[in-house]
Amino acid sequence: MNETTRRIAILGAGGLGRNAVRLLEQKSEFRLVAIGDSQGFVFNEAGIGSADFDAVAEGESVEKIGRRSGDSAAEVIALNKAGKIDAVFLAVPNIPNNFIPELIVRFCREGFRGVIVDALKRTSAVRQILATEKEIANSGVLYVTGAGATPGLLTAAANLAAQSFQEIDEVKIWFGVGMNGWEKHRATIREDIAHMPGFNIEKVRAMSDSEVEAVLTECKGLLELHNMEHADDILLERAGTVAAERVKVGGLVDVASAKKPVSTTMTLTGRTFEGKTSSHRFILGDETSMSANVLGPAFGWMKAGLELHDRGIRGLFSSADLMPKFVG
Amino acid sequence: MNETTRRIAILGAGGLGRNAVRLLEQKSEFRLVAIGDSQGFVFNEAGIGSADFDAVAEGESVEKIGRRSGDSAAEVIALNKAGKIDAVFLAVPNIPNNFIPELIVRFCREGFRGVIVDALKRTSAVRQILATEKEIANSGVLYVTGAGATPGLLTAAANLAAQSFQEIDEVKIWFGVGMNGWEKHRATIREDIAHMPGFNIEKVRAMSDSEVEAVLTECKGLLELHNMEHADDILLERAGTVAAERVKVGGLVDVASAKKPVSTTMTLTGRTFEGKTSSHRFILGDETSMSANVLGPAFGWMKAGLELHDRGIRGLFSSADLMPKFVG
Repeated sequence: MNETTRRIAILGAGGLGRNAVRLLEQKSEFRLVAIGDSQGFVFNEAGIGSADFDAVAEGESVEKIGRRSGDSAAEVIALNKAGKIDAVFLAVPNIPNNFIPELIVRFCREGFRGVIVDALKRTSAVRQILATEKEIANSGVLYVTGAGATPGLLTAAANLAAQSFQEIDEVKIWFGVGMNGWEKHRATIREDIAHMPGFNIEKVRAMSDSEVEAVLTECKGLLELHNMEHADDILLERAGTVAAERVKVGGLVDVASAKKPVSTTMTLTGRTFEGKTSSHRFILGDETSMSANVLGPAFGWMKAGLELHDRGIRGLFSSADLMPKFVG
Repeated sequence: MNETTRRIAILGAGGLGRNAVRLLEQKSEFRLVAIGDSQGFVFNEAGIGSADFDAVAEGESVEKIGRRSGDSAAEVIALNKAGKIDAVFLAVPNIPNNFIPELIVRFCREGFRGVIVDALKRTSAVRQILATEKEIANSGVLYVTGAGATPGLLTAAANLAAQSFQEIDEVKIWFGVGMNGWEKHRATIREDIAHMPGFNIEKVRAMSDSEVEAVLTECKGLLELHNMEHADDILLERAGTVAAERVKVGGLVDVASAKKPVSTTMTLTGRTFEGKTSSHRFILGDETSMSANVLGPAFGWMKAGLELHDRGIRGLFSSADLMPKFVG
């Protein structure tokens, strides 16, 4: 660790937060100094790791190293004002639907100066973030939204691929997910099923686990999903790259096998200035997990955001606007 | 054209410049207002096109629409100071080897305020640009180097792909080029042959056209090139993404067929934070020409540079640092 080590806080002690801690443990440029969720909050200037995370996640034992706190955001803002936290990764679920937007407004109004990054997925969630743009622009915050895998890594790949073309016909993001059993991914699977014909979020929420399993059995564990609500669409439109309705997200989820049924691929089709129609593709390696493809980019955008923040830039950016920086 | 239309100058009236004019004719956000080379210079606030370009390129007829000028750089700098040019695309060859670096220093010292972009290829050429970094940092210039295809589009793809990994093993850029006959691409083919075993730039320069043709006949028109000197290596190292020696550039050039012998592909192999080794790939559509993949990105980076310049940012950036912006 050196003088330019950035001090990071994670808000949210679920699966995403847990993997973020594991990833940050391997980084020397970033030091995780705080973790908070609705139950507890831990801060240690010298750096904290997986054990501390568990304490927060379990709630019970948080007093051993941190303390109970009903307001982790207030703790982070206070530490930022004391010069002890540079950036925040939001690993909290956006439940209720306005939870994160209201959190952002608080950070802005209560004087947080630094970078905040989310890895939100759904178009409706990111749209709510975009609605806070003015608030962010007039604050000390540089905020990067949609900075995970899709939106995120694949949004950026689409934006990059678009540069070779004069007109963009379509961006197609088609992912493959393999999971050996659905028990560990109940929430994700339920969200996926909600995107299948004949289902929606409310309907799936009302289903019992055995009803979900019956659906999985019926489709032999292979869910084919179309027109998924991922915010790549509005972020690419906002960047001026392509109209939102030309961005399609879908894929194949194999619940019965850890092997991906198809390689996750972003395909951008367009017409060059010479009148040729062609497609550029960005293909993710099958061995890379969703965590690697979400969290690596998220912290890459955090680093890019911190460099711009150092140069006095504030405001709302997305994965379609900024080139992420590799965090060593 | 609207109030935010950017006024562009191109320096260099060769093949790259000619295609840049064709591309800009299709853009509404950018207006080409000046073209210059060593012989002539044309400026028209209302916009200029291919006919004007031909006049400059031919030298003879330049007085009809522009004027002879032995110093196009001085013309561009004067017009920039008069508020009539926002950005310059350098389409000049870097011959002699310090031509562009000296040009940059002139732009910086003589008070140019705006964005300059190059699409230089060779590591040695880009290294010279990097040596002018301090000069640029203390000027009114935001300069983007290596902003073509490789380095450029594929450098950016590599930097993006790297984000999913904790350690990068290798970046391999492997291109396919098809050309039906070498007559139109003499300089490029000679440069390619210089990268083959047993050849170098001096040796190829001394060869006659029929000697070059003999080489092409011997390899049946298919040139396999390894360890090419493309600046992707030093730009990715400078961005902190991967050590230069881990970046390999090569490919297959088919001189006898317009069809590409292989799809141009960037493959980045690395290890994720979970310890998995895998590769992300970025594959260019076979129908996209070198011009489309060089020039689209170049103006995309120019737009990104202009937005940062508007926000007060100056200095030297590369295709590994900035996300290009789609120019409508």
